[in-house]
Amino acid sequence: MKSYERDNIRRMTGYSWGEQPRDVNVVKLNTNENPYPPSPAVAAALADFDVARLRRYPPPLADGFRDCAATLHGVERDWLIATNGGDELLRLLITTFLEPGQPLATTTPSYSLYPVLAAVQDCPTVEVPLAPEYSLPPDLAAKANAAGAGLTCVVNPHAPSGRLFAVTELDALASELEGLLLIDEAYVDFVDPDLGHDAVTLLRRHDNVVLLRTLSKGYALAGLRFGYGIAPPHLIAPMLGKTRDSYNVDLISQVLATAAIDDQDWARTNWARVRGERESLRAQLEALGFSVPPSQANFLLARVPATADALALKQRLQAAGILVRHFATPGLDDCLRISVGSEEENRSLLAQLRAALS
Amino acid sequence: MKSYERDNIRRMTGYSWGEQPRDVNVVKLNTNENPYPPSPAVAAALADFDVARLRRYPPPLADGFRDCAATLHGVERDWLIATNGGDELLRLLITTFLEPGQPLATTTPSYSLYPVLAAVQDCPTVEVPLAPEYSLPPDLAAKANAAGAGLTCVVNPHAPSGRLFAVTELDALASELEGLLLIDEAYVDFVDPDLGHDAVTLLRRHDNVVLLRTLSKGYALAGLRFGYGIAPPHLIAPMLGKTRDSYNVDLISQVLATAAIDDQDWARTNWARVRGERESLRAQLEALGFSVPPSQANFLLARVPATADALALKQRLQAAGILVRHFATPGLDDCLRISVGSEEENRSLLAQLRAALS
Repeated sequence: MKSYERDNIRRMTGYSWGEQPRDVNVVKLNTNENPYPPSPAVAAALADFDVARLRRYPPPLADGFRDCAATLHGVERDWLIATNGGDELLRLLITTFLEPGQPLATTTPSYSLYPVLAAVQDCPTVEVPLAPEYSLPPDLAAKANAAGAGLTCVVNPHAPSGRLFAVTELDALASELEGLLLIDEAYVDFVDPDLGHDAVTLLRRHDNVVLLRTLSKGYALAGLRFGYGIAPPHLIAPMLGKTRDSYNVDLISQVLATAAIDDQDWARTNWARVRGERESLRAQLEALGFSVPPSQANFLLARVPATADALALKQRLQAAGILVRHFATPGLDDCLRISVGSEEENRSLLAQLRAALS
Repeated sequence: MKSYERDNIRRMTGYSWGEQPRDVNVVKLNTNENPYPPSPAVAAALADFDVARLRRYPPPLADGFRDCAATLHGVERDWLIATNGGDELLRLLITTFLEPGQPLATTTPSYSLYPVLAAVQDCPTVEVPLAPEYSLPPDLAAKANAAGAGLTCVVNPHAPSGRLFAVTELDALASELEGLLLIDEAYVDFVDPDLGHDAVTLLRRHDNVVLLRTLSKGYALAGLRFGYGIAPPHLIAPMLGKTRDSYNVDLISQVLATAAIDDQDWARTNWARVRGERESLRAQLEALGFSVPPSQANFLLARVPATADALALKQRLQAAGILVRHFATPGLDDCLRISVGSEEENRSLLAQLRAALS
């Protein structure tokens, strides 16, 4: 039977997502979801929603949400695009700005979706290994430029290490890059506010920087599929008016996402709780013999004690109803990536690890 | 300032969507929305929805919905893909099966999104004019094959005429085409059931046919953004596992879409009402001097009386709070495309038209 697939699609391998079990009793620390519920304002907006409104198409540009996000970030509406999860923004950047065959650059390790999306566009990926302690490779821009990369993707805080790259480092990277720089801020809400980290300032200083945000982690809305991009209008406009599906975000999502970002008090309290649990969990993992670099995200990359096997540990946890992530790739295969759970979830995890290692 | 856009994106023009006013009192007959509300089962599912579930990612493959749709259509789950509106399926077909530069074929007129999505992939569009009375061009397959088209898109019932192409005609077309045939059944729910029209049978007889369905029109859920594709597994699998965004349909949409298609009694009653209004509206438009071909969709293409100007009529209706669609393209510029409204909406429309033409 004829497959009809394009050659590059036939050759490529799809993205492999973390397990999403139906059992709600599983302690799910494998896909970086928020352990606490979304804002009560989201529940209220849903309760108030009149289903008859679904009869009509949604606002095509999600202007209500964009206005709210613009105020939050101190930019104008035309600096924003709402997307069906952050993943859609990544796809739109590639569709709009990366010619088939032109490389995408990123670090190794990084979010494993980048090379998959590049492959869909028939683009190779230039992977530059991180420097020691998961720091930015000093030759990232040089290698991206040498390869002719049209887009360089950096996730910050970094996944899966949790390390935060400083705005000054990204500033230098943006200056040096000949193509676009996507800073994937999927986890930025969990950065300690005392650090004063704010990459939005880069958008005023460079014509080639795009920021990705998502409501999946910081606003506890992974099930809603809502993200957004912030960038100067010359980068937003072609995605908004040409390459995006005309009605890419549904009406309920627009209403709920707006309610969520409008309740910054709830959000900030949530982030502080996650940070508190993160630091506590990290200390206890280290006490158990794990080596855990500091994280500014809502997960920890825990290198297992030399006497233990990471994959076996992951499987033992799974048998006990606790999911964590293991990557079978060099440099990561002796680690577990553990999402920060609630106090109770973290306690269950630590009890199982203690038993397994004793 | 450097634009960074790909050349083909810079050159192309985006899709132009029908006006979506915020004023809910507008009589909105311009984008083929359903005049009646969605099933009460949808409202009940929304009322029962626990917002805390949004904390986690949705089922990545929407298996609950797919199982329900599979039963409805008498196919297996792996013959189905759920998409963020029908538009996403169109994009996925192009991404997966159409090489950059390879033509997409369609009829003229047709859904104006097809050439836009092709342009995003840097693909030209081969447009074959319909035969008289909006019938299928006898040379469609020959012209598509001669151009090397990888995908031919036929909307059935046809938009904007409302004409239904017979399954036997599509059967012959699928046999003749060397590439894929997408049958866009966005409006198929409104086909008179006495005709026994069922294109699913084609999927068993050909390896190159894909059906598009949407909940936007037939289930009164345009605001929900939910569509699906039906095709043999060798065509579904690469879209499902490789080119689709991993979590392309959000959790609330999955739950509500499943509730909607599960209530076929409500749906069938809705379709019968729309058909009744369609036939009544058509008769009254013809009585006013419009020429209106028979329609099996939820809209009518009304050629204005020779003494009238279609654009002026559209604008006069708009001033009275009634939106209809006008296409400034040859062969259509003397027509109005009018979505079938409720009895009351259609009465308002006819009163305004009567006044304008007297």
